[in-house]
Amino acid sequence: MIHGAMQDWPLLVWKLIDHAAENHGQREVVSWTCEGVVNRSTWASVRQRAKRVASALRAMGIRPGDRVGTLAWNTHRHVECWYGISGMGGVAHTINPRLFEEQIVYIANHAEDRLLFFDLTFVGLIEKLAPHLKTVEQFILLTDRAHMPSDTLLDLVCYEDWISTGHEDEPWTDLPETAPSGLCYTSGTTGNPKGVEYTHRSNVLHAMAACMTDTFEAGARSVIMPIAPMYHANAWSIPYTAAACGAKLVMGGPAFDAPTLQKLIVEEEVDLALAVPTIWLSMMQHLEKTGGHLGKLRRTGVGGSAVPQSMIETYDRLHNVRVVQLWGMTEMSPLGTVGSPIPEVAALPYAEEMAFRIKQGRPLFGVEMCLKDDEGRILPRDGKTFGRLMVRGPWIVARYFKGDGGEILDAEGWFDTGDVATIDPLGYMQIVDRSKDVIKSGGEWISSIDLENVAVGCPGIAEAAVIGLPHPKWDERPLLVLVRKEGAEVSEADVRAYLTGRIAKWWMPDAIEFVDEIPHTATGKIKKVALRERFRDYRLAAA
Amino acid sequence: MIHGAMQDWPLLVWKLIDHAAENHGQREVVSWTCEGVVNRSTWASVRQRAKRVASALRAMGIRPGDRVGTLAWNTHRHVECWYGISGMGGVAHTINPRLFEEQIVYIANHAEDRLLFFDLTFVGLIEKLAPHLKTVEQFILLTDRAHMPSDTLLDLVCYEDWISTGHEDEPWTDLPETAPSGLCYTSGTTGNPKGVEYTHRSNVLHAMAACMTDTFEAGARSVIMPIAPMYHANAWSIPYTAAACGAKLVMGGPAFDAPTLQKLIVEEEVDLALAVPTIWLSMMQHLEKTGGHLGKLRRTGVGGSAVPQSMIETYDRLHNVRVVQLWGMTEMSPLGTVGSPIPEVAALPYAEEMAFRIKQGRPLFGVEMCLKDDEGRILPRDGKTFGRLMVRGPWIVARYFKGDGGEILDAEGWFDTGDVATIDPLGYMQIVDRSKDVIKSGGEWISSIDLENVAVGCPGIAEAAVIGLPHPKWDERPLLVLVRKEGAEVSEADVRAYLTGRIAKWWMPDAIEFVDEIPHTATGKIKKVALRERFRDYRLAAA
Repeated sequence: MIHGAMQDWPLLVWKLIDHAAENHGQREVVSWTCEGVVNRSTWASVRQRAKRVASALRAMGIRPGDRVGTLAWNTHRHVECWYGISGMGGVAHTINPRLFEEQIVYIANHAEDRLLFFDLTFVGLIEKLAPHLKTVEQFILLTDRAHMPSDTLLDLVCYEDWISTGHEDEPWTDLPETAPSGLCYTSGTTGNPKGVEYTHRSNVLHAMAACMTDTFEAGARSVIMPIAPMYHANAWSIPYTAAACGAKLVMGGPAFDAPTLQKLIVEEEVDLALAVPTIWLSMMQHLEKTGGHLGKLRRTGVGGSAVPQSMIETYDRLHNVRVVQLWGMTEMSPLGTVGSPIPEVAALPYAEEMAFRIKQGRPLFGVEMCLKDDEGRILPRDGKTFGRLMVRGPWIVARYFKGDGGEILDAEGWFDTGDVATIDPLGYMQIVDRSKDVIKSGGEWISSIDLENVAVGCPGIAEAAVIGLPHPKWDERPLLVLVRKEGAEVSEADVRAYLTGRIAKWWMPDAIEFVDEIPHTATGKIKKVALRERFRDYRLAAA
Repeated sequence: MIHGAMQDWPLLVWKLIDHAAENHGQREVVSWTCEGVVNRSTWASVRQRAKRVASALRAMGIRPGDRVGTLAWNTHRHVECWYGISGMGGVAHTINPRLFEEQIVYIANHAEDRLLFFDLTFVGLIEKLAPHLKTVEQFILLTDRAHMPSDTLLDLVCYEDWISTGHEDEPWTDLPETAPSGLCYTSGTTGNPKGVEYTHRSNVLHAMAACMTDTFEAGARSVIMPIAPMYHANAWSIPYTAAACGAKLVMGGPAFDAPTLQKLIVEEEVDLALAVPTIWLSMMQHLEKTGGHLGKLRRTGVGGSAVPQSMIETYDRLHNVRVVQLWGMTEMSPLGTVGSPIPEVAALPYAEEMAFRIKQGRPLFGVEMCLKDDEGRILPRDGKTFGRLMVRGPWIVARYFKGDGGEILDAEGWFDTGDVATIDPLGYMQIVDRSKDVIKSGGEWISSIDLENVAVGCPGIAEAAVIGLPHPKWDERPLLVLVRKEGAEVSEADVRAYLTGRIAKWWMPDAIEFVDEIPHTATGKIKKVALRERFRDYRLAAA
């Protein structure tokens, strides 16, 4: 094959920050910091300081391919570290501080992080963990001399002192574009967390796709605030995306409370902000209580879990803010689908359009998507058929870090998201369940989530969980586990009466059990593994 | 170097049409055809028929890497051929039918085109050229059986018959993304045309950049009409871009007249149309004469030559259409810069913003740009300093087809655009001249174009051309060559009086000559080579 004759210009992460510094150098990067002040920086300054980081890392003996950990909020310093580490060929490993301590230790050791950058918030945590972090040679505290703690036994490096030893004319490292650039561990509910190693290529392509009009409509006139943290799938790529399109970047640092976020949104004239539904829920309540507004905010990208219809409607009606659903995974860099309207949907009356807006959206260019059954057959896109959601694309994982979990793509290169979904004829995908939670009843699949959502609406019910139990005839049938509201006296018969007519007949649980408490994971999700364990010997009446 | 672990998903042109067919299958592709009717197609149909093209090409023995020529207007059939050829690994070679006949023959032979697809418009031309096209094995006429000419001696293949022999479930060809996908020759004013061979990678990356919000603001709700022809640097990539973002595509086929274009724009609800300034000039005159309007058109992308300020203002004022300047080259796929406003400029009063809108714009992500002097030193971005405009990026040529012209990048990988430009502190680039035409006077550069533009405003002057002549002290000094309007009696002294105060003192031409006629190229540009030849022995008075 004769190759064409276009320039060899590898897609490297440092080209994003170079582009931003050269073409949008004065555009602001504003952070609420751990020191409790607002820091005003620019893309030019972020590059300059990222170069100092790269230079200082080299001086410390960090080499291309080495992992460098961060335990930090969204701030200009974290962004500088990110670009500085990747820019010298290192792998920026963002660690989620909300994980259990033993998970953090496991992750940092598994990644063999040679350095750890961390925020003031985590001094106490690091004091506890440091003895267990076997590969970390230096702990660098992301603050200035004035804020260095005096009462710690840790041997800490002061970031602002350290960065001043680096050179701002340091060259970036030339790398093949498939070289690793970042590392992020999934918070698996079973087994140890697994690492997803992003490449320069995957990050740059993902940023370009995120800059496409129908993704975020973001450009140089945008002011974007990623409330999703950088350790949560790259803050949904916003620090890359904003650089690629030259947007102003606003970051909340350690703040996730509605009053601080609202203040930043209004004062910095944020027009696009991205966060999980719980953030927007508490913002909604805050605004209702205070009668406040969201300034110039016009769109929110919301992902992480499904968005309730009432939230979409409230933001439309009260705040003139369009809630756009996003769906993705750590394994997908993370963006897979976006709920931007296509003309067929945009033309619908409000109520009919809503039927699409409550879905998770349509795939970006670069993401291929299909539904498969358990035998690997492609399923129809009829909006009804449940199937395993499979994805392919240049920013989707091929294998986990160090080969953990073995071969994870099927014979045709599809990655199984672990989600069960429908895809409608207009291409809108809707998650209906996790594939390990869906109940496989006689060849048809029942969504445990849908069943839980209906059941929790029954008067007197505080929480509901559904698991599948073995059944000789139907393979699996649902068991509904319920927690009563304090003092409520709702009976099984009441629940069955409530469910009748609200769910398909064949979805009716074979058994209903009342318990005092349903177990949860660290992030608040129902721990179905534990439930299944608890009801392991349970026998369904019909079985 | 350990490579990261993201999926290997090569950037191939057929992934654009697959994306469009799968996610925007019902979106329309509308063409005004050579048969004088409007054809209504869809992205799903374009892919289906492109697969038939790929299948039929394979059946004819066309192999990956083979060049297949097209001599055709913008229609659905041309788009099908384009995707079909690239999709089976062939190289789609779009030939400009407006070139001189000997250039077309040279190009087709140099490319070794094995097949030639052509429109009804060109039957007469092909009858003349066929005997000279040494490598073309078959001539395929892009029409149906009913429109096949009966009175030609050519042995023609009827496209609609031929495409029906192909299979619509034909697989695409897997290729490395650096494989060639398309070929387009520059219409060089000196020497033979040189070929630019686009790769799958360069086309896909360019399409992604063109889908970025600040490029065209185009998405699935857009209706885009590329009036720039596909043989003119890929119709500025619109058939790729529209597929990537799922926009409706409207194409004018052989029509370049204002009434037909206006009708299409209004009836098909085009909101973005792209063409050279002359098209928009004649549209402006047409609308003025007829009192017509442009329906839903809101933006025009205008490139190919500088846009007069009066045109920008007229479209703003009378038609509510924003004229956005584009700059690029065949060698750049073609997009280099776009005149979308950044916040600093968008905030200016109208008249001050205009000072930026008359420039050629700012670079897309993926295009690096700098100014160099003759010694290769980087020049300041002060909006004043003239320099050679140099570019780098993944959709910019590294070498011409077959190595014509030898090494074309400098030691740092920059491609010399042949333009002289300024770049201002906000990053807006403005072309001031071609580097072979700029007059190098004592280390400072004088723009021949600017001087011509001022001189042609002098009463009694019909046309003006400026060339540099050797000067012992200043290296070069300008000679102004003028054609008087019929019956005008303007003298050299009149011209000098007119120029005084309108140009910098040191720009005053050393000599002024009146001639009957100024020579032009086929595309209407001043043939400065011929002028320099004519005045080769001319001695400037001061010299």
